[in-house]
Amino acid sequence: MSAHRQGRPRDRRIDHLVLEAVRQLLAETGYERLTVDAVAARAGIGKAAIYRRYASKVELAFAASVHDDDLPPPADTGSLHDDLLAIARRVHARMNAPAARQIGPAVIAELARSTELTEKFQQGPLAAERELYAKVLDRAAARGEIARPIDPAVVHLLVSGPIFFAVFGYRVPVDDAVLETIVTTVTAGLRP
Amino acid sequence: MSAHRQGRPRDRRIDHLVLEAVRQLLAETGYERLTVDAVAARAGIGKAAIYRRYASKVELAFAASVHDDDLPPPADTGSLHDDLLAIARRVHARMNAPAARQIGPAVIAELARSTELTEKFQQGPLAAERELYAKVLDRAAARGEIARPIDPAVVHLLVSGPIFFAVFGYRVPVDDAVLETIVTTVTAGLRP
Repeated sequence: MSAHRQGRPRDRRIDHLVLEAVRQLLAETGYERLTVDAVAARAGIGKAAIYRRYASKVELAFAASVHDDDLPPPADTGSLHDDLLAIARRVHARMNAPAARQIGPAVIAELARSTELTEKFQQGPLAAERELYAKVLDRAAARGEIARPIDPAVVHLLVSGPIFFAVFGYRVPVDDAVLETIVTTVTAGLRP
Repeated sequence: MSAHRQGRPRDRRIDHLVLEAVRQLLAETGYERLTVDAVAARAGIGKAAIYRRYASKVELAFAASVHDDDLPPPADTGSLHDDLLAIARRVHARMNAPAARQIGPAVIAELARSTELTEKFQQGPLAAERELYAKVLDRAAARGEIARPIDPAVVHLLVSGPIFFAVFGYRVPVDDAVLETIVTTVTAGLRP
């Protein structure tokens, strides 16, 4: 979704200024009133530089509030359970943060309206998230912790899905014991 | 959420007429233009009778497109895997139906706006869904298919959550093989 996926070099200082301006404006005025003009003014950066990175307001808000496509690598704890628990905690912290809870329903509605945007999200953030699961599962397979090869896309659904459902579906609170039960069940289910 | 939960008797013929009118209007004009007036006119039933059943447009649309609070009992196949797979297939068929895909983002947005509505959804449809999982897990526990007692609310998140995430999050298609892998992993994870 962002420029580096198309192989262009990336100026991290500009990225930081833009996303920080978005975060401030979301906190001050909310998603509905967010405009790229206001982001450009706040960041002191031209609109063209912003549009080179993010083609729409929803992509900008997602990158600022949830994550951009450069996710830090997953923890390498030596066990599948602990690696997945670290991912689950990070996913929950990100989805459940006030800015993400605020923009989540708008992102969901925009994706429903546009297959083009959906494809960009699948190639951007979704692919980045799946990569984390793929790395953790590769290491687990090498340690013999997995019975059969499993598609990382399904494990992404199995761990991130319950958290997304709890936060944006029936809006039920998720504490660390719930994350632990989810991850323990999935890990045991993959074991030989 | 609907009248029978408050212990009032329920006229199934009226329920049917109301929900069928909502389904027709959703298909014809969409959620945004749906009004309780139009539902009353189409069903040939007074608005008061509708409001006694459903306090708002979003509750009416959910009951008509996803499910009301009277869910048919879960399949009793004699194995946890097959019982859960039957639930997963039903959940996917319901969430992925055109009317549910259409109203889903609106329901998600309304829930985000109103904690009162969220509480009603938690006491109505969420409770009804959890009951299905509780029944299936009770039977599995009696057969010795479960290692430790597990909260049905977590199994609800583990099976319905990935489907919700796929349909309303990144909008990735879910085929029967994916449902099978989800259920097989969860079942194996609960086994002694």
